[in-house]
Amino acid sequence: MKLTKYLMTGALLAAVPALGLAQEATEAAEAAEDIGAAGLAALNTEMVFIFNSLLFLIGGLLVFWMAAGFAMLEAGLVRSKNVTMQLTKNVALFSLAAFFYYLIGFNLMYPGDAWMMEGWIGALGTTVLEAVGIGADEAVDVEYASVGSDFFFQLMFCATTASIVSGTLAERIKLNPFLVFVVILTALIYPIQASWTWGGGWLDAAGFSDFAGSTIVHSVGGWAALTGALILGPRVGRYRDGRTIPMPGSNLALATLGMFILWMGWFGFNGASQLAMGTIGDVADVSRIFANTNAAAAGGAIAAMLLTMLLYKKPDLTMILNGALAGLVSITAEPLTPGLGLSTFIGAIGGVVVVLAVPMLDKLKIDDVVGAIPVHLIAGIWGTLAVVLSNGDASLGGQLTGIIATGIFVVITSGIVWFVLKAVVGLRVDRETEINGLDMAELGMEAYPDFTKG
Amino acid sequence: MKLTKYLMTGALLAAVPALGLAQEATEAAEAAEDIGAAGLAALNTEMVFIFNSLLFLIGGLLVFWMAAGFAMLEAGLVRSKNVTMQLTKNVALFSLAAFFYYLIGFNLMYPGDAWMMEGWIGALGTTVLEAVGIGADEAVDVEYASVGSDFFFQLMFCATTASIVSGTLAERIKLNPFLVFVVILTALIYPIQASWTWGGGWLDAAGFSDFAGSTIVHSVGGWAALTGALILGPRVGRYRDGRTIPMPGSNLALATLGMFILWMGWFGFNGASQLAMGTIGDVADVSRIFANTNAAAAGGAIAAMLLTMLLYKKPDLTMILNGALAGLVSITAEPLTPGLGLSTFIGAIGGVVVVLAVPMLDKLKIDDVVGAIPVHLIAGIWGTLAVVLSNGDASLGGQLTGIIATGIFVVITSGIVWFVLKAVVGLRVDRETEINGLDMAELGMEAYPDFTKG
Amino acid sequence: MKLTKYLMTGALLAAVPALGLAQEATEAAEAAEDIGAAGLAALNTEMVFIFNSLLFLIGGLLVFWMAAGFAMLEAGLVRSKNVTMQLTKNVALFSLAAFFYYLIGFNLMYPGDAWMMEGWIGALGTTVLEAVGIGADEAVDVEYASVGSDFFFQLMFCATTASIVSGTLAERIKLNPFLVFVVILTALIYPIQASWTWGGGWLDAAGFSDFAGSTIVHSVGGWAALTGALILGPRVGRYRDGRTIPMPGSNLALATLGMFILWMGWFGFNGASQLAMGTIGDVADVSRIFANTNAAAAGGAIAAMLLTMLLYKKPDLTMILNGALAGLVSITAEPLTPGLGLSTFIGAIGGVVVVLAVPMLDKLKIDDVVGAIPVHLIAGIWGTLAVVLSNGDASLGGQLTGIIATGIFVVITSGIVWFVLKAVVGLRVDRETEINGLDMAELGMEAYPDFTKG
Repeated sequence: MKLTKYLMTGALLAAVPALGLAQEATEAAEAAEDIGAAGLAALNTEMVFIFNSLLFLIGGLLVFWMAAGFAMLEAGLVRSKNVTMQLTKNVALFSLAAFFYYLIGFNLMYPGDAWMMEGWIGALGTTVLEAVGIGADEAVDVEYASVGSDFFFQLMFCATTASIVSGTLAERIKLNPFLVFVVILTALIYPIQASWTWGGGWLDAAGFSDFAGSTIVHSVGGWAALTGALILGPRVGRYRDGRTIPMPGSNLALATLGMFILWMGWFGFNGASQLAMGTIGDVADVSRIFANTNAAAAGGAIAAMLLTMLLYKKPDLTMILNGALAGLVSITAEPLTPGLGLSTFIGAIGGVVVVLAVPMLDKLKIDDVVGAIPVHLIAGIWGTLAVVLSNGDASLGGQLTGIIATGIFVVITSGIVWFVLKAVVGLRVDRETEINGLDMAELGMEAYPDFTKG
Repeated sequence: MKLTKYLMTGALLAAVPALGLAQEATEAAEAAEDIGAAGLAALNTEMVFIFNSLLFLIGGLLVFWMAAGFAMLEAGLVRSKNVTMQLTKNVALFSLAAFFYYLIGFNLMYPGDAWMMEGWIGALGTTVLEAVGIGADEAVDVEYASVGSDFFFQLMFCATTASIVSGTLAERIKLNPFLVFVVILTALIYPIQASWTWGGGWLDAAGFSDFAGSTIVHSVGGWAALTGALILGPRVGRYRDGRTIPMPGSNLALATLGMFILWMGWFGFNGASQLAMGTIGDVADVSRIFANTNAAAAGGAIAAMLLTMLLYKKPDLTMILNGALAGLVSITAEPLTPGLGLSTFIGAIGGVVVVLAVPMLDKLKIDDVVGAIPVHLIAGIWGTLAVVLSNGDASLGGQLTGIIATGIFVVITSGIVWFVLKAVVGLRVDRETEINGLDMAELGMEAYPDFTKG
Repeated sequence: MKLTKYLMTGALLAAVPALGLAQEATEAAEAAEDIGAAGLAALNTEMVFIFNSLLFLIGGLLVFWMAAGFAMLEAGLVRSKNVTMQLTKNVALFSLAAFFYYLIGFNLMYPGDAWMMEGWIGALGTTVLEAVGIGADEAVDVEYASVGSDFFFQLMFCATTASIVSGTLAERIKLNPFLVFVVILTALIYPIQASWTWGGGWLDAAGFSDFAGSTIVHSVGGWAALTGALILGPRVGRYRDGRTIPMPGSNLALATLGMFILWMGWFGFNGASQLAMGTIGDVADVSRIFANTNAAAAGGAIAAMLLTMLLYKKPDLTMILNGALAGLVSITAEPLTPGLGLSTFIGAIGGVVVVLAVPMLDKLKIDDVVGAIPVHLIAGIWGTLAVVLSNGDASLGGQLTGIIATGIFVVITSGIVWFVLKAVVGLRVDRETEINGLDMAELGMEAYPDFTKG
């Protein structure tokens, strides 16, 4: 009840003996004015702090939920013999991301006092949260939001990056090297490049604009996935005699559920990236973002549906799901400034990109089990470029700088990690394990043991 | 930071030279008073605006989530050979609803300035959102909430109406005519009748009361589904020799998940229909609505369980799921004024209605795959009538007027659309496709390809 | 719009004729001051009330969602022949908990005026909600939050307790006696012991500290489950020749979804147990709780993964899922005071506890189908003890008092209920029913009828 303090201060001042002089009466009136203004300002500050923190908490909660979305999407799109492995990877990668982003990533991305004073090692696992039961005067940034809510929100973004990688490399990568890669991605690769823009680094200064992370989150996951896919190679039997052999996902209901979860979570992903909702302007902006995000997802789904109807005479559900996701990725770099029509268009192009890129990747024999490269990398690039369509502050040069710098950095760093892992422990399960499925060979546990395989 | 302005205005006034006259001192005190009052009022306005907008955003998010609930419920209640189709329909219908409600529906439902000035065609896709980064003085309705959050919330209601139709007509309707129907439903039929009550139209003036849409959303979906079911006819082999042949749903876990998602989303559906939470009274009302909504769902589930135990000696899970949903539909017309006991009762009657109506529809050879007609139409009518039990402002006449007028309008308009579609492109897949399942014949994609059918 | 009143009062006072006396001018200034202070205080009170109520509503919504999480987790971990039954139990238990907590439990847990005045029977189903459209002066506790939101939140906690029991006793207990047990648990056992601490009773006075219910919710469910498991006995064929026969869950994707839902819901479970977010201190605390809760879950999952890798050479997904849940249960008794590192550690020990306790229970031939006893009871005891690691106000003695008193009370009361039910109606299905599965024998409805069993 911070208010009490201001009221008591007011009461004390009001107790100043009235001297009966007009001059002093006027001053008293002014003092009353000032105290009222101070009280109002304090109350306003408190409310803004609460609203902003609440936005981060709700947003972080929704982006957490995206971890479940990726798990369901990927479990639905792999064959039944690899489902337990895909689920294990998803639960493990989120948990590892949570731990290592706390231990290293957060301080690396936002190098604060702890990092400055104690050096990098000294900042390991530095408690980043505010103390329990702080007063208004003890908040780290009383004019903004709680550190805990900000940390919670940022952590979820980091974990999302790791979720993207697991889908592409499914059905053939060993569990342990994958998890080691996740640790390095979430502790180092993601936070370092994210600090370039969101930590107030050089890309931010270079005019690169990426509102909620088409490049910083989605393309980073996509580049890491692409690099891994190239080094890992395609699944056994995927490409034969110049043809791509279909390996249909085992549970499209689960995949659709995953897509809906991701769509839902994206309102938090983009909406809370406004980073504030304590004023009329901010909450109206968050509202715009919600509406635009939804429009882009719908645009992506519709475009993918119409294009697959046109190209293949039949709508393709997995393309529609990925189309919606590509629409979401596309609008992520700038969900605020476009109108609903332009948002729909940007999302629709994302959907088109996916439908065209999936067979293209197959032609290049890049085997992406769930389509994460088209959805997160290629639509991420499109979305980052599309910022210039609506945001006057962004330039094509600035956007390209961000896209290219991030791409080079992630390809090189993750390439090194993948190569080292390949040399030291090996990346792939052996051929027999892959054919029989990773679940029994690597984990000894089927996902659907009561049902015979077709 | 709108506050700054008021503080600065205050500072300017306070800078008026103190003339040393008591009269002026008193005036200064009054001015201080006025400025304090203005500052307080401005801060209060800002907070109310934020809370109301936030309510719409959270509510819209939850109603969005209901789209996933319908998808899972319906995918779980159709046979495995039609699951991919049912999923495709659900993703597509939501996306189309989002696009056409933006393009046409919203302006038609709430005919604002754009519509008045530019005529109907001119208003097509008119940007409905507030500009980016508005100040308090630029908000369209500064005393209420952001247009973007309102649009987002209303859009989700429109989409819900379309979701209801897909379940009833499952397993036999072609994809394309179904999607065309969705476009007309969400662009025209829903918005027109919704404007009668929620757009301040003639039904509102006639005293019709439908808090969150037992009639306006649920019965409308139900009438459209019923009309479609009558024109489409039952599934092949559904009714033989006077008996109803059971065609059990393929995945009751998925159906149960769908029910839980819908129950969850309904807190947003009913709760945010309070349309405000920026005062003690409003947030207490939203709280009542949450508690009542939950009570009604529980009442519906318990009633359906007990009644199926009594009638069939065994509780019936699909009836319990539909009983909970019927409880939710029943309380939707008036979730605020009843107490917890009456809410439980209203929901319980909804559950009873479903258990009795499902076999009745089968006797009439109206084939409703998921039970959407009993749940959304019949329980919707019951809920709309039940308003008079607790809301003194509602009359049986007013309620009947709304129920009948809406029914006639939707049956006629959707009947015309279904007939035209039947004549022009045909509504049903051919018999062989239906028997083999729509997934392979229409989409070439199974939902569960790794599992043999029993 | 309570503000209006203060402004009007101010306007009236300001209208006092200026007498031109300095003395009075000063008094006017003071009056302006006082009125400004009163207005500020009233606005602050209103905002705090809204924020606190909103916290309960969001928290309750998330804990409601945990009911779906338990349903999916348990449906995924039972064999396919018992899935419909497990789903039915979960929907029914939540609905019954909602009804009986309203009818009896809430008033018993927080004995208010109704209970005092009218006696226990008179308080049955007493309307607990505030009237519709209250003014600030009519709120039951204007300085806190709406009764409706509090009721909604507390109801969900009660239902959670019942959800815990159903998993342990799956695949062999009859539906009806299970549901009767749920009624007694949610109407009497849970509220009585919860009132000891959260209702300001003797355990609270004895210094027992249980922030969000490691003991009061989770261990209570766990003790009731353990008592039931002992009385019910293990599944047919579970223990043979000194070995435990594996009975793998039928759908690990569903179980993983359930775990993610529970993890998500837990942010509401722990976060809203702060019971307030209307000040900077409170919202910063809620933020801490969110971050700590996530850290503990991640710690539990990682620990379970590493330990199963170590012990069995293979990570075990069901152990990882239960490890995450055990991490969550462990942090629930004190999610506020520890830092992120200690929270991770507390959660990790929870994960270790589960991995070690599961085979131990099997050695004792206590058959716990989903592992609810290790997760909710044993990790709940650990978490309750771990409070002393970070909360200086808690003592080992106080914690042990709470753990032991609660354990004795729940074991005795639920033991009596189980024995009476066993004697009167019998607890177990017959052997043939159990072998064939409860779904067909008891319910006549398979969960996955289209798929042949392996």
